[in-house]
Amino acid sequence: MNIILASTSTLFGGNYLEYLKPEIQNLFSETNEIIFVPFARPGGISHEEYTKKAREFFTQINIKVKGLHEFEDKIEAVNNAKGIFTGGGNTFLLVKTLHEENLMEVLKENVENGTPYLGCSAGSNIGGLNMKTTNDMPIVYPPSFECMGLVPFNINPHYLDPNPDLKHNGETRETRIKEFLTQNNTKVVGLREGNWIRKIGQKITVEGKELTRIFEKDKEPYEIAPGTEL
Amino acid sequence: MNIILASTSTLFGGNYLEYLKPEIQNLFSETNEIIFVPFARPGGISHEEYTKKAREFFTQINIKVKGLHEFEDKIEAVNNAKGIFTGGGNTFLLVKTLHEENLMEVLKENVENGTPYLGCSAGSNIGGLNMKTTNDMPIVYPPSFECMGLVPFNINPHYLDPNPDLKHNGETRETRIKEFLTQNNTKVVGLREGNWIRKIGQKITVEGKELTRIFEKDKEPYEIAPGTEL
Repeated sequence: MNIILASTSTLFGGNYLEYLKPEIQNLFSETNEIIFVPFARPGGISHEEYTKKAREFFTQINIKVKGLHEFEDKIEAVNNAKGIFTGGGNTFLLVKTLHEENLMEVLKENVENGTPYLGCSAGSNIGGLNMKTTNDMPIVYPPSFECMGLVPFNINPHYLDPNPDLKHNGETRETRIKEFLTQNNTKVVGLREGNWIRKIGQKITVEGKELTRIFEKDKEPYEIAPGTEL
Repeated sequence: MNIILASTSTLFGGNYLEYLKPEIQNLFSETNEIIFVPFARPGGISHEEYTKKAREFFTQINIKVKGLHEFEDKIEAVNNAKGIFTGGGNTFLLVKTLHEENLMEVLKENVENGTPYLGCSAGSNIGGLNMKTTNDMPIVYPPSFECMGLVPFNINPHYLDPNPDLKHNGETRETRIKEFLTQNNTKVVGLREGNWIRKIGQKITVEGKELTRIFEKDKEPYEIAPGTEL
């Protein structure tokens, strides 16, 4: 496998995918055309608008982008893809669409067989075992929460440390993930913004500038450094 | 109907249910015993522990508390209840348990027929049409997102304004609710902490000290003052 699962597409104050540019060039070095999966529709933008946004970035590195929504036969399109990028947005909408169009399994098979894959945020959530550690609002009801399982754990993108100044009684991210662990025996990788997971062959590492917080059932959460194998 | 749907159980720096005490006394003025629904299990605490916490508050106002989990026949228990309180925690876990035990419909019928109902946070979410505007993490997969619909809209508890100082690319609450409105034509009441919805008979008002933010499809969000009818 050859995949990147990134916490976010855009760093605060940065441009879309800018901080990941060398990594993305490396990931897609063997291809000049990728398929973009726009179904997470951040802020409700259309598939066309979202694909245009992805295309603007990839044009800079001489890679053509086709939106998966443009194809009559989407399964064939994924089977023929030379690279795949799933953008962020709402994970519930993304997972619902992928299951309804029978694409989750097809994506999984192709990526497992070597098609390079980039995911950001919701697109990274679907690389995990299931979407039960997304931060998104359940705006639609997917037929299942199961995902591709490209890595043997779950991802919490945009991982955020508790803010001691916040006078608000909503749960912290850590509390939420600990609640998940009361119901599931699944490792969760709390991926801070600016970090990503890299899988090449069977080797999985965490990359970026920040530490990464790992949550496991019946253990205290712990931090691992960039470059650590997962 | 005679119901309170509160944004939170506990204000920052306050004790459990303290700020709502006069309202709760008024709601349950005709009863000396209520049933507590502990299924949302905040932080994963047990049904027993959570019921104990509720009991500690209600003892102060001379109301006995029985946990719904204590009953062999839970449907009969709800049918015989003189008052019902559903505590906060994880809405997915709460809704899954209620649907699996066939309790959602039974709760709805009893509250619509006059049993006084108090909900906090997740317990307020289930008073809305569905749980698609919860803030919680989808740690379990409920058989449906449908809820009691005691009010003809959805609730977003712990409504939080965007923090301009946050250097983080996760979605704001407002962005999330706007994404919901791209997929659903349902009014959303953004209930800031310290506010609650009061329904007496067919009259629904918003109460508390803060303004309440209302979101509707194809409209700019707007604010309403305490006491406004919904």
